[in-house]
Amino acid sequence: MVGMNVMRVFTITGSNPALLNCSARILSSPVKSTKLGCLKTSTCSYTTSSHLFGKLLFRQLFEKESSTYTYLLADVTHPQKPALLIDPVDKTVERDLSLVKELGLKLIYAMNTHVHADHVTGTGTIKSKVPGVQSVISKASKSKADLLIEAGDKIYFGDLFLEVRPTPGHTLGCVTYVTGDGPNQPQPRMAFTGDALLIRGCGRTDFQGGSSQELYKSVHSQIFSLPKDTLIYPAHDYKGFTVSTVGEEMLYNPRLTKDQDTFKHIMENLNLPYPKMIDVAVPANMVCGLQDLSSKPVEAASKI
Amino acid sequence: MVGMNVMRVFTITGSNPALLNCSARILSSPVKSTKLGCLKTSTCSYTTSSHLFGKLLFRQLFEKESSTYTYLLADVTHPQKPALLIDPVDKTVERDLSLVKELGLKLIYAMNTHVHADHVTGTGTIKSKVPGVQSVISKASKSKADLLIEAGDKIYFGDLFLEVRPTPGHTLGCVTYVTGDGPNQPQPRMAFTGDALLIRGCGRTDFQGGSSQELYKSVHSQIFSLPKDTLIYPAHDYKGFTVSTVGEEMLYNPRLTKDQDTFKHIMENLNLPYPKMIDVAVPANMVCGLQDLSSKPVEAASKI
Repeated sequence: MVGMNVMRVFTITGSNPALLNCSARILSSPVKSTKLGCLKTSTCSYTTSSHLFGKLLFRQLFEKESSTYTYLLADVTHPQKPALLIDPVDKTVERDLSLVKELGLKLIYAMNTHVHADHVTGTGTIKSKVPGVQSVISKASKSKADLLIEAGDKIYFGDLFLEVRPTPGHTLGCVTYVTGDGPNQPQPRMAFTGDALLIRGCGRTDFQGGSSQELYKSVHSQIFSLPKDTLIYPAHDYKGFTVSTVGEEMLYNPRLTKDQDTFKHIMENLNLPYPKMIDVAVPANMVCGLQDLSSKPVEAASKI
Repeated sequence: MVGMNVMRVFTITGSNPALLNCSARILSSPVKSTKLGCLKTSTCSYTTSSHLFGKLLFRQLFEKESSTYTYLLADVTHPQKPALLIDPVDKTVERDLSLVKELGLKLIYAMNTHVHADHVTGTGTIKSKVPGVQSVISKASKSKADLLIEAGDKIYFGDLFLEVRPTPGHTLGCVTYVTGDGPNQPQPRMAFTGDALLIRGCGRTDFQGGSSQELYKSVHSQIFSLPKDTLIYPAHDYKGFTVSTVGEEMLYNPRLTKDQDTFKHIMENLNLPYPKMIDVAVPANMVCGLQDLSSKPVEAASKI
């Protein structure tokens, strides 16, 4: 059926026939293939220009009830295929771990962008089901976790890494994880912004140490300073968007394109209801989903 | 904050410090930049090996009520940025057209993979709001549209194209749109499978000319014959998955990995309820969302 030797050309201005006469052939892309997980504090200088996705396996996953996005990233050219999950949700842990298994990945980190108020993190359940997985959250969040990260830290999974950018304002401890700037790192870069920057929106600033002034400063200094083609992957979307870019949000974000005073006024007048899940979610998420932490947190354990 | 000169290294087996001491520099990727929309019947031979996304702007959009994915594709290196929407939903037309406008795209096609039974297509509303947009559906669907496509047709938008693969079984007229195999076409390829192949599932086969035997044959001959790294983008997902690959579905699809008799048995015993929307959706979708078609369908108008 495919490859019939009849020919039709439509254009939007009218018909314009032309003939192509060649045989069908489908070729698959070869996959090339080297430390597992580690975390480094530093920033490096590199030049990147081509679009490289070959090393990175990337999956965006959605939890419908809280409209939360969970992200799975792995270095598939590393022999062990080390992987991490950003903002996993308790209710979808089984789905996420099945996918990790089917894809042959080694999950090493279960990370959060912040202490969520609208759902319980899946980190605790993941740790109980997959020995060796380390929970990750910012030190500024004042939460318990295996790894408490800070500004400028690099979280390695195989040869790929995420850089930590502090983006407080929705909560005190919000961070944005950004894919590396360097050779063999994904291009364009990808920013996992949590609730700091949403697509055409942003997180509320009226609880958990929130501050509209801090949030404005965070987004402008830490996210809008990234290349304009950087892909924005937020922790939530309520309108069915899956991705945006820095350039798009700088042009079309209805809140963050305003001056700081207008932004503050907008944020102070949202009149949002008290979050349904906050009294359950925040205490659970302050211990990364483990009410009874058996492993001792290793806050800055390797700091030298 | 970013680029602090402290250093920490964590590994999953223990701490392993190492020092990187370089200055921060962030570089954006240059974007390169040629016919608008047309449709060609033919197949061509090319060799592709690198991952190229540079020309393609791609957005996946979600409609929560019917769990439908709409896809926006555009050739952003073409001066007019010609774009198309696959499986738009009536309820989210405003969102989709706003995005098209913000991104500076010229929408030329509003396409459907099949006559949907669970939602009304957005095609009619889009045509009424954006003059010049052409509706596209398969001839086999027996629906009315501006362009009635068939096996092997190529739908061009700028220098990029989608190839039409017939995948009947969920309905008589289902097709899968697959990105081109050729230089400057996206790699890996992307297959928009409608309801023929879902992530770890498939569309039901008990109405609208459905046939489990046809569906089994369609998926195996037209989709599983694509390179294993081909990305699968279905019309729906109910579990929060956004994408899969041919290789993954060949290994893990719980229905289509079975032999044909087992598949038939599974499909005959799903005991699914009568679709709530079918009596409204199908009549509307048979005319691509335009109950009163003002433009005459151009079925094979340019066939020569």
